[in-house]
Amino acid sequence: MAVATITAVPGFRSAGLACGIKDNGIFDLGLLVSDAPCRAAATFTTNKFAAAPVRVSKEHLARSRGRVRAMVVNSGNANACTGAAGLRDARTMCRVTAKLLGVKEHEVLVASTGMIGRTLPMDKVLAGIERAAARLSAGAQAGRDFARAILTTDAGTKTATETYSVDLSKGAGRAQGRVAGAAKGAGMIRPDMATMLAFLTTDAALPTARLRRALRDAVAPSFNAITVDGHTSTNDSVFLFSSATTGTSGNATFEKNFNAALTDVCKQLAEAIVLDGEGATKATAVTVTGARSHAAAERIARTVAESPLLRCALFASDPNWGRIVSAVGYAEGVGSVDKLACAINGTTVFHKLKPTKFDRNKVARSMRTKRVTITIDLAEGRGSYTVLTSDLTYDYIKCNAGVPT
Amino acid sequence: MAVATITAVPGFRSAGLACGIKDNGIFDLGLLVSDAPCRAAATFTTNKFAAAPVRVSKEHLARSRGRVRAMVVNSGNANACTGAAGLRDARTMCRVTAKLLGVKEHEVLVASTGMIGRTLPMDKVLAGIERAAARLSAGAQAGRDFARAILTTDAGTKTATETYSVDLSKGAGRAQGRVAGAAKGAGMIRPDMATMLAFLTTDAALPTARLRRALRDAVAPSFNAITVDGHTSTNDSVFLFSSATTGTSGNATFEKNFNAALTDVCKQLAEAIVLDGEGATKATAVTVTGARSHAAAERIARTVAESPLLRCALFASDPNWGRIVSAVGYAEGVGSVDKLACAINGTTVFHKLKPTKFDRNKVARSMRTKRVTITIDLAEGRGSYTVLTSDLTYDYIKCNAGVPT
Repeated sequence: MAVATITAVPGFRSAGLACGIKDNGIFDLGLLVSDAPCRAAATFTTNKFAAAPVRVSKEHLARSRGRVRAMVVNSGNANACTGAAGLRDARTMCRVTAKLLGVKEHEVLVASTGMIGRTLPMDKVLAGIERAAARLSAGAQAGRDFARAILTTDAGTKTATETYSVDLSKGAGRAQGRVAGAAKGAGMIRPDMATMLAFLTTDAALPTARLRRALRDAVAPSFNAITVDGHTSTNDSVFLFSSATTGTSGNATFEKNFNAALTDVCKQLAEAIVLDGEGATKATAVTVTGARSHAAAERIARTVAESPLLRCALFASDPNWGRIVSAVGYAEGVGSVDKLACAINGTTVFHKLKPTKFDRNKVARSMRTKRVTITIDLAEGRGSYTVLTSDLTYDYIKCNAGVPT
Repeated sequence: MAVATITAVPGFRSAGLACGIKDNGIFDLGLLVSDAPCRAAATFTTNKFAAAPVRVSKEHLARSRGRVRAMVVNSGNANACTGAAGLRDARTMCRVTAKLLGVKEHEVLVASTGMIGRTLPMDKVLAGIERAAARLSAGAQAGRDFARAILTTDAGTKTATETYSVDLSKGAGRAQGRVAGAAKGAGMIRPDMATMLAFLTTDAALPTARLRRALRDAVAPSFNAITVDGHTSTNDSVFLFSSATTGTSGNATFEKNFNAALTDVCKQLAEAIVLDGEGATKATAVTVTGARSHAAAERIARTVAESPLLRCALFASDPNWGRIVSAVGYAEGVGSVDKLACAINGTTVFHKLKPTKFDRNKVARSMRTKRVTITIDLAEGRGSYTVLTSDLTYDYIKCNAGVPT
């Protein structure tokens, strides 16, 4: 397999460095550049306080019709709730990057993550962009530097790559396409909030509209199906860039394989975000099946996954079915609970309104791991959904409240 | 003012004692009895896993048409998710109480709070009911004993009383009516969940239907407007009993005064529940005004009040406007946020998409108290709502996860 960095796809170069937004030489500026104009798709936060970079990237994607050249990212400052000055700064980041690369301003996208409500130290940011442009590279180290530069309080970098196979036309055999990605997770810098960013590269030769749909379909069961604290950030963004050098758009198998690889990369990055969520010790997949609809299954799964009581029980490796079924009981979208069956790590703990006779110690032991599964079957329809959640721990409070004053 | 216990209203007697559901002689059984048939109204949890006592009390209220004589309550065991055996036990508690008091089974209501999924130790419960019936009293101590008997891990009893004035007919002057109540809050007994119970007595001579409406109106801005962890229990119940000895139902002023007193008592008890929420150090009122509708204001206020990030900031007395406005930004029901103004303890900290220049240390100091107010004015309509929330603390995790395994 290719090295798991964003530069694993030919045609992309990157860089990452410390420009001085953060102290102590911690990386805070990243650049991702496509050698030729590439196709881009993106999904953004639905928060009404969408940050300046989110608004500028949306504008640039529209003006360029999804044909872009570069992405500039900073961490340590979210450039959110910064008014007209923030919009100006986000545009300046794009303009300066464009000038250094000899491309147009609207061919550059921008993302920020970190503190809300402070304006960027633009002198440092612009000097950093100039240095980053000078050290762009297609090597694995440059990809790792980019992955480092986008972090906030994440414990480590989050990268993933997958390949997909393409049948070449007229029996010319098969080619291998690539999808690569880097993400940052739910980190926290006082006084603000987590933001989630992901950057994906590929070579899939699909029209921009198809890339958009593929990204939307891949984001739904991955990034949009995780929760650390139910608090949607102002800066969440996922970007997909394609060099469009592999495959042909008429080939259904190619597209299917590509979509699967893209979804896999997104799921790997999403799980990495939950495992590295603030204070998290484990990732728990809450799967609802047999709901009256997929929408109902999603609401129920999210209600269970966001229950602080359940999330404390997960921290304690406590097979507390009472907290699971009672959360189902107040979730919207539930019809009857009479036939509900609930299993933890494959052991049925509750069925038909009563707990089963299960070995509590054995199930508790099975929960002392990085990955726990909870399945809830309502047996009243075909709707299903899985959401991935972190546990609620002392370190989450420490991260977000510190020592009380 | 009358002593703040449930027996402050003439015509009611109560008792509370330890029957042995809990260890170490901790009170766990309470009895509340009306000397004559009284009018009763109640509101119950909407959880689909409504506990056996909730189901039996609903049945008995329907069969008795709201004319009841007594209420039996136990703590330490919620009698929830206990199947047919649990229903049988709840009925037996009513039947035995009725026999001891010489009334009908369906004139007795029942409530339970505590652990989910275990059947009640009925020998202990029935012996306790017999002892409680023998020591019923209209004295203040008996009221306090009842208030103690309904607690789980609450730090202390929660009681309140209010008076209201009634114009007597034909210029015969004024009388004073009474409302009294006892409640238990968000306590936790492993492996289960918080339950909220409240018991209210009054003398207001209103038809049962009007008592029901009064209770519904009083519960909406009090018990239904608090959140400790967003997890609706299987046992939540509020009961109102009236001896119907004061006032006449045709008198609008009487009814208005009674309704106000009832709402006050409910609000006092609800605030006491939040202040004594699991791990809580303070109660914060989140008020949304200027929303497009009251329903929108409620959704927005609840979204903000349930944000774990904001609740950690409240613990830290951190005037973190970023966590407030970003939560508004993802709440359902928000139109435009362009004119949003946010204040903490009366100081405007954010307005028109930008933070104001405020004295952060001064506002932080003002938050080091038991009661904090957050107001969010959207300036796009007339909808308003206030929700009361606790903060999220190390002790919440300790209470619900203990030491991780």
